[in-house]
Amino acid sequence: MKIAVSIGDLNGISLEIALKSHQEIKKFCSPIYTINSIMLNKAAALLNIAVPDDFTIEECGNVFEINPSNVCAHSGQFSYDSFIKAIELTKDKKTEAIVTLPINKEAWKRAGISYRGHTEALKDIFKQDAIMMIGCDKLFVSLFTHHIPLREVAKNVTKDKLTKFLLSFYRQIKEEKIAVLGLNPHAGDNGAISDEEKKIKEAISEANKELENEIFIGPLVPDTAFTPKNRQHLRYFVCMYHDQGLIPVKTLYFDESINVSLNLPIVRTSVDHGTAYDIAYKNKNPSNKSYINAVKEAIKLAQKRKVYTI
Amino acid sequence: MKIAVSIGDLNGISLEIALKSHQEIKKFCSPIYTINSIMLNKAAALLNIAVPDDFTIEECGNVFEINPSNVCAHSGQFSYDSFIKAIELTKDKKTEAIVTLPINKEAWKRAGISYRGHTEALKDIFKQDAIMMIGCDKLFVSLFTHHIPLREVAKNVTKDKLTKFLLSFYRQIKEEKIAVLGLNPHAGDNGAISDEEKKIKEAISEANKELENEIFIGPLVPDTAFTPKNRQHLRYFVCMYHDQGLIPVKTLYFDESINVSLNLPIVRTSVDHGTAYDIAYKNKNPSNKSYINAVKEAIKLAQKRKVYTI
Repeated sequence: MKIAVSIGDLNGISLEIALKSHQEIKKFCSPIYTINSIMLNKAAALLNIAVPDDFTIEECGNVFEINPSNVCAHSGQFSYDSFIKAIELTKDKKTEAIVTLPINKEAWKRAGISYRGHTEALKDIFKQDAIMMIGCDKLFVSLFTHHIPLREVAKNVTKDKLTKFLLSFYRQIKEEKIAVLGLNPHAGDNGAISDEEKKIKEAISEANKELENEIFIGPLVPDTAFTPKNRQHLRYFVCMYHDQGLIPVKTLYFDESINVSLNLPIVRTSVDHGTAYDIAYKNKNPSNKSYINAVKEAIKLAQKRKVYTI
Repeated sequence: MKIAVSIGDLNGISLEIALKSHQEIKKFCSPIYTINSIMLNKAAALLNIAVPDDFTIEECGNVFEINPSNVCAHSGQFSYDSFIKAIELTKDKKTEAIVTLPINKEAWKRAGISYRGHTEALKDIFKQDAIMMIGCDKLFVSLFTHHIPLREVAKNVTKDKLTKFLLSFYRQIKEEKIAVLGLNPHAGDNGAISDEEKKIKEAISEANKELENEIFIGPLVPDTAFTPKNRQHLRYFVCMYHDQGLIPVKTLYFDESINVSLNLPIVRTSVDHGTAYDIAYKNKNPSNKSYINAVKEAIKLAQKRKVYTI
């Protein structure tokens, strides 16, 4: 399976990760890296790493001086061009999914790119909100609300929106059992604390009815949702707000986590770390766990699409 | 050090835990169990466990038929009497702290006890709100807000209330470094998402100024607060709401966690599990990790009080 790898910010750690992981990811797929040969050779020379013979690239972007560990408009523009090229390849069916290495948001801003990051760009390109799923094979959380103030979460929990979300999520991942968390302490304690859980319960019922199957369970009491015992038989969790899902994921699987954009015309996964300027071009061997997991998940999701023709 | 152990609901697992852990906790303290000899012998006979010779008791409560695994007014009343006796012993300085085994809230209700549980009773007896701290030696979280709807958390975060809370918390635990979490995703992202973090920052500054020491750090980004790297050098976290603190604690240390009531005239710790009626009197050897940790923490806190004469 051909996978497009968008190369990220060249002043950061991403090319080091891509080069050092090439042999490993070749075992699962045929990666196509969106970078031009001049920049590839420049960066590889700086890193003192030989470019593998079978390191297939798709030319894109300008040529500029790499300035390790620095926020710069040139590397911002380059990482954007690499991202757009990878999307095009996938839209044109030349690749079956896209894996993104980290960009620097400030560098995008300096390059005059109006998007705050990958997710905003995807939203605009496909005119569709992605469902954000974070984690690794052992624990994936999907976020019903994202970057909104905590005080506004409750009013966003409505039966219709949540039902729609649950159905979209299920259609993307096709898992047999998906947990849905409550919103309040003790999941509202049967209404004694609060009662948004009623709406969550109704959404779960409606989604299960529509699917003619008891896919969704809950609303679970949030604080005990992720206990070791629960995680033995549950791996997918729908969370009502950002930190309800990301606290357990980052507490348990910080290095291994990836970010998946679901509900888009293309499959896109991403590492869940940044450009790590502090260790860029210093031969510190940055962890590639997140990258490897992102590649594996991209393949898995692309294969599911083939089977289910979503 | 003499510690009062309130024996909890006799239809549940608590006496089994107390009897089976007696030799172990004797290594750290002299426990005094608040139970009468008739009930002790009845329960021990049912469990088929011999009562150790040095199992010191303080007589209290009525005599009734133990009805394993059932919610019953008699055992509710008994567990309440045992709790009150343990408090009296500690108030009268006959013991230096109290450790509570689990009660059943429904049984208290059936016995006509107006409190919902231990914490409410303590609040009324001492006319003071306790600070709730949950966790174990590896990770303790204290909760700035408890059992309120999620939608009401933000408006409860005020500079003055939080400053007072931080100072009270510090005076109880006397740790050198205490992390304080933000409220919103990415701790508000410098105001781009929300700005309650400003108030949190001010409260931290004021508390540190008052203590003439940089005790409190933060506001931390909530989702990365509990990563393995952070937990290497931080063990105490002030959380803005119930699940922000309890999700990481129960995800990582479900069996070992305890519940500590700070800011009261007496030291009180508790196991963080329930009566486990499903395994009561079935010789299933319920885990005593939480109980052992509760006893150890009670001793540690009582010792701190002696040193600092809070």
